[in-house]
Amino acid sequence: MNIDMIRAAAQRLEGHARRTPLLGSPFLDELAGRRLLVKPECLQHTGSFKYRGGRAALSALDPDVRKRGVLAYSSGNHAQGVALAAREFGAPAVIIMPADAPRSKIDNTRGLGAEVVLYDRAGGESREAVGERIEAERRLTLIKPYDEPEVIAGQGTTGLEIAAQAAEMGISQATMLTCCGGGGLTSGIALALEAEAPGMQVRPCEPEGFDDTKRSLASGHVQSNATQSGNICDAILTPAPGRLTFPIMQRLCGPGLAVSEDEALDAMALAWQRLRIVAEPGGAVALAAALIRKDEIEGDTVICTVSGGNVDPGVFRRALDRLDGGA
Amino acid sequence: MNIDMIRAAAQRLEGHARRTPLLGSPFLDELAGRRLLVKPECLQHTGSFKYRGGRAALSALDPDVRKRGVLAYSSGNHAQGVALAAREFGAPAVIIMPADAPRSKIDNTRGLGAEVVLYDRAGGESREAVGERIEAERRLTLIKPYDEPEVIAGQGTTGLEIAAQAAEMGISQATMLTCCGGGGLTSGIALALEAEAPGMQVRPCEPEGFDDTKRSLASGHVQSNATQSGNICDAILTPAPGRLTFPIMQRLCGPGLAVSEDEALDAMALAWQRLRIVAEPGGAVALAAALIRKDEIEGDTVICTVSGGNVDPGVFRRALDRLDGGA
Repeated sequence: MNIDMIRAAAQRLEGHARRTPLLGSPFLDELAGRRLLVKPECLQHTGSFKYRGGRAALSALDPDVRKRGVLAYSSGNHAQGVALAAREFGAPAVIIMPADAPRSKIDNTRGLGAEVVLYDRAGGESREAVGERIEAERRLTLIKPYDEPEVIAGQGTTGLEIAAQAAEMGISQATMLTCCGGGGLTSGIALALEAEAPGMQVRPCEPEGFDDTKRSLASGHVQSNATQSGNICDAILTPAPGRLTFPIMQRLCGPGLAVSEDEALDAMALAWQRLRIVAEPGGAVALAAALIRKDEIEGDTVICTVSGGNVDPGVFRRALDRLDGGA
Repeated sequence: MNIDMIRAAAQRLEGHARRTPLLGSPFLDELAGRRLLVKPECLQHTGSFKYRGGRAALSALDPDVRKRGVLAYSSGNHAQGVALAAREFGAPAVIIMPADAPRSKIDNTRGLGAEVVLYDRAGGESREAVGERIEAERRLTLIKPYDEPEVIAGQGTTGLEIAAQAAEMGISQATMLTCCGGGGLTSGIALALEAEAPGMQVRPCEPEGFDDTKRSLASGHVQSNATQSGNICDAILTPAPGRLTFPIMQRLCGPGLAVSEDEALDAMALAWQRLRIVAEPGGAVALAAALIRKDEIEGDTVICTVSGGNVDPGVFRRALDRLDGGA
């Protein structure tokens, strides 16, 4: 796993993944107490950065293998990214999703032509058992959500863009806040910035109670979360940092940050109001840290990902309700 | 008023105006019955294309004149565009706004450092009388919202970007739908596409009951609207096409399209859901026409502006309520 793989992924994604802009607002600068720039991957195809990793992984497969189809486990964003990439290559995709994933994510994954198999996350069913049976029967290739070099390489292309876009603005020093689940985006961006913008330090952001990466970085050993549900930040509720992603984060990242559900909702509302973008809760944790946990951050400039924007209207309405004059 | 002025404005806006992306979604393609691309100027600085015209006009002024300050009349988006451009140049800005403009637009204009003077749109007060007094007393320069060559040139830079971005995607033929108030954006884009993408035809989109441009184009003479308020599409409720903009639209544009308030709200909801962007009602009329009035449009590809995203939460909630599963 190295920068050359990220650069190669960027070439394969050229003309496919969107080069999302780097947004900002004088109102958010004031709230953050420093210059704040946002990389809105909610504007990426399928509404999250996951399309980058999905397309990078699919495009790296041998065409004969790819033709047989792919399999993915996902609460929704990786599902859609893999589903669209598979459709673009004319390959079948089977996606194993928790039955309690946001309805829009399930609908969209099906809408992109994938076969969705639901499993009961809270109950006794093991998604691995379901997946392994289908994988073997149909000779599909498993595309892991983060612990897979080509997926990390695809997510890392976000970091190449950030480095180039910040340089165009004359920015070489910054704190880079990432929304962190299993660490695919975080480790990919960290590797890209190590090569292209070494003056930027990556700090992973997570929901309180699901801050496995923060605790793992602090302790120097992989720590797990007690549960995988029960928080609105559904996109980033992973059990623990990955086998591949953790050593990269350990080598390159600063301390993690954790935010509450209400802070994520506030960040969603501010992204709506000041950037006119739609963030989902898990995609808003880095912005929440930048705006609300600003005393825990150093430096004149902070860049953060808004990593996804796939959210059901009811949850979004809760964010709008928190705005002054929201009712 | 010609393409050279638009190209010159583009040079002056380089590094200031954002090059907004060209977005799309397979779900919207399906609804539109053709390929649909969206130019999201809600992601522009101040949340609408109006920053382009404001910055273009301010940057064309003699520095000594600019230093004295500028004056603008606006229901809110031109206000914010001029306010930010003035602040960037260190010039004072006085903005005359209707007292019933959306609260967020008034607050944001003040937040950008402008002096806001409110007038009663429904009552007897003439905004021109208020404005002329201030203009004379303080020797300010009036920046008109659309009937001003440098403003049209600035808005036209949107068209240069659309032509280049479409060409990168191999698209040279398209119907270009614009959100149309006084016609600054529409005539600017039409001039840009005439030079850079002559296979595209511009069609202005307006709210029903405020379709002065549609009626003017159909009759060959400038037609007015009966009122200037009473519709949620506040950004584009202008009395009539401009003296400069109408002849350009007459020469270059196809027939106008008009949509209802509910159709604009539906388009806002779909932009939220499928593009993860925030559209205001007046900024959603072109998308509404593309998605809902699709039988009135010809060709395989339609490109539309989402011209602004400055909307109060209460109105946005009405849009979300219209989504399936929105409650």
